[in-house]
Amino acid sequence: MKNKKIIGVVGGVGPVAGLDLVDKIFNQTRAKCDQEHLSVLLLSFSQDIADRTAFILGETNVNPAHAIFRIIQKLESIGASVIGIPCNGVFAPQIFDVILEELKQTNSRVKLIHIVDEVAKFIRGNCPEINNVGVLSTTGTYKARVYVNILESNGIRVVLPDENVQESVHSAISDPMFGIKAQSNPVTDAAKQRIFEAINHLRKKNAEAIVLGCTDLPLAVTEKTIENILIIDSTLILARALIKEVNPDKLKPMHYQGS
Amino acid sequence: MKNKKIIGVVGGVGPVAGLDLVDKIFNQTRAKCDQEHLSVLLLSFSQDIADRTAFILGETNVNPAHAIFRIIQKLESIGASVIGIPCNGVFAPQIFDVILEELKQTNSRVKLIHIVDEVAKFIRGNCPEINNVGVLSTTGTYKARVYVNILESNGIRVVLPDENVQESVHSAISDPMFGIKAQSNPVTDAAKQRIFEAINHLRKKNAEAIVLGCTDLPLAVTEKTIENILIIDSTLILARALIKEVNPDKLKPMHYQGS
Repeated sequence: MKNKKIIGVVGGVGPVAGLDLVDKIFNQTRAKCDQEHLSVLLLSFSQDIADRTAFILGETNVNPAHAIFRIIQKLESIGASVIGIPCNGVFAPQIFDVILEELKQTNSRVKLIHIVDEVAKFIRGNCPEINNVGVLSTTGTYKARVYVNILESNGIRVVLPDENVQESVHSAISDPMFGIKAQSNPVTDAAKQRIFEAINHLRKKNAEAIVLGCTDLPLAVTEKTIENILIIDSTLILARALIKEVNPDKLKPMHYQGS
Repeated sequence: MKNKKIIGVVGGVGPVAGLDLVDKIFNQTRAKCDQEHLSVLLLSFSQDIADRTAFILGETNVNPAHAIFRIIQKLESIGASVIGIPCNGVFAPQIFDVILEELKQTNSRVKLIHIVDEVAKFIRGNCPEINNVGVLSTTGTYKARVYVNILESNGIRVVLPDENVQESVHSAISDPMFGIKAQSNPVTDAAKQRIFEAINHLRKKNAEAIVLGCTDLPLAVTEKTIENILIIDSTLILARALIKEVNPDKLKPMHYQGS
C-alpha cells in the first residue's frame, strides 16, 4: 500500500456503472498479471445516495452531495488520493459545489477528477474538427445544463434532444420496468430502441459526435461509431483520466477512430 | 449507512475476477433502481497480494494472508461486516488459517464467507444425484488439495486433471501472454482451448459436473452446461451466499438446470 497514488471510485451512481468504470480502468491498464494492476477502491453505497435528477428537478430536498462527500471521506481514510465519480449529474453545480465545499472545510487532500471537464478536454484534443456535439443524459444533467455550460465554454457547440425525446432517453435509463437501472444484463430492447431513436434525432439536428453523458448509457451502447457518428463514452474518458493521474506509464494507447 | 449489513469484497485476486463477483452480486439482487441495491465495498489492492500459487508451491516466502488480513481490516473500518474473497487458492490452509488467526487476534467481528464450503453446500443441496465432481483450478489450489479435502468431507468424490492437463489449465489462467490474467477482454482462444480440453479430459474421467474452482475461469467459461455436464461457477455461488447473508429477501431465485 506504500507511497503510491490510489484510485477511489464513488460507486452506486448507478451500481453497474460503477463496475463499468473499474472494468474500463483495468482494461485500459498495461498489466500481464494481478500484481501489475493499479489499486482501485470502489465503494457502492447506492442506498445512501439520493437520486440526482430528483434533486435537480426539486422533487426531493435531499442533496446527494452529502452522502457522496462522506463516501469520499471513507475512500480517503483507506488510502485513496485520486477520486472518480462515474455519474454526470453529480457535476451539476447545485450538487458538485457542495461536495467541493465540504471537502475544503474538512481539509481533504484528494484530487477529484471532473468527468465533464475530461470529456471537453478529450474533444478539444482529439477531434478539433468537430463543432456540434450531441449529448444524451438524464433529465437532471439536461436541465442543469451541465454539458452545455462546460462544453460551450470550451468552444464546442452542444446539440440537445427536444424535450419529448429527452423524456424518452430518461425513461430508457430510469424506468423501473425497462430502464437500464432496472435491467442491465441484458439491457432491454425497449431501452435500446429509445436511445437509438434519440441518436438518430441528434444526427438530424446536425450532431457530428454524440457524448454518452450518463454513465448508464455505455451499458446499452457499446458501438464506437454509429453511421459515421463518433460515440464518446464518458465512462471510458474518466477511466483513462484516472489512470493518467496515478500512473501515466500504465495507460494503454487509445484506439481512437476520428470521424 | 445505518445499521445494515454491508458486503466487503477483497478484490485483486485477480482484479477482473473481483469485478465479476460484484457484477454477479448486483445481477442476483432484486432491484428496480440504484437505491434498492445492496451496499458493496470492493478493495482491489492487487499489487500488495503475493501470488497464491507461488506461495503454496514454495516459490516465495511471502504469505498473501497478511495483505489480505490488512485489506479485511480496512473493509471493516469503513463498515463492511460480511466478507467475500473471490479466490479459491486463498482457502488453502497455509493461507486461510493465518488470515483467521490474525482476525481473531485483532478481535475482528466480520463474517468471512468460505467459497469452497459454499460450493460443497450447493452441490449437496442442489444436485444430490451427482457423485463425481471435476474441479478446474490453479496449480496452487490443486496442490493444496483444497477442493479434494472439503468436497470429500462432504461425501462428494473429486476428479482432478492429470498433472500435464493441470499445467495446461494453470497456463490458461496465468500465462503472461495468453492467460486470462493477462487478457480477459476478450479471453484468448489459446486460453479457452486449454480449458475446454481440460473439461473434456475430466468428462472422460467420469466427472458428472465441473466446478470452476478459480475465479478467473468464469471469465472464459460462461456456459451453464457443456454437453450435459453441469458447470458450477464458484464466483456465482459466492455472490449468492453473500446476498443471502446480508439480506435473503433480495436474492433472486436461482435458474438452476440440474443435469
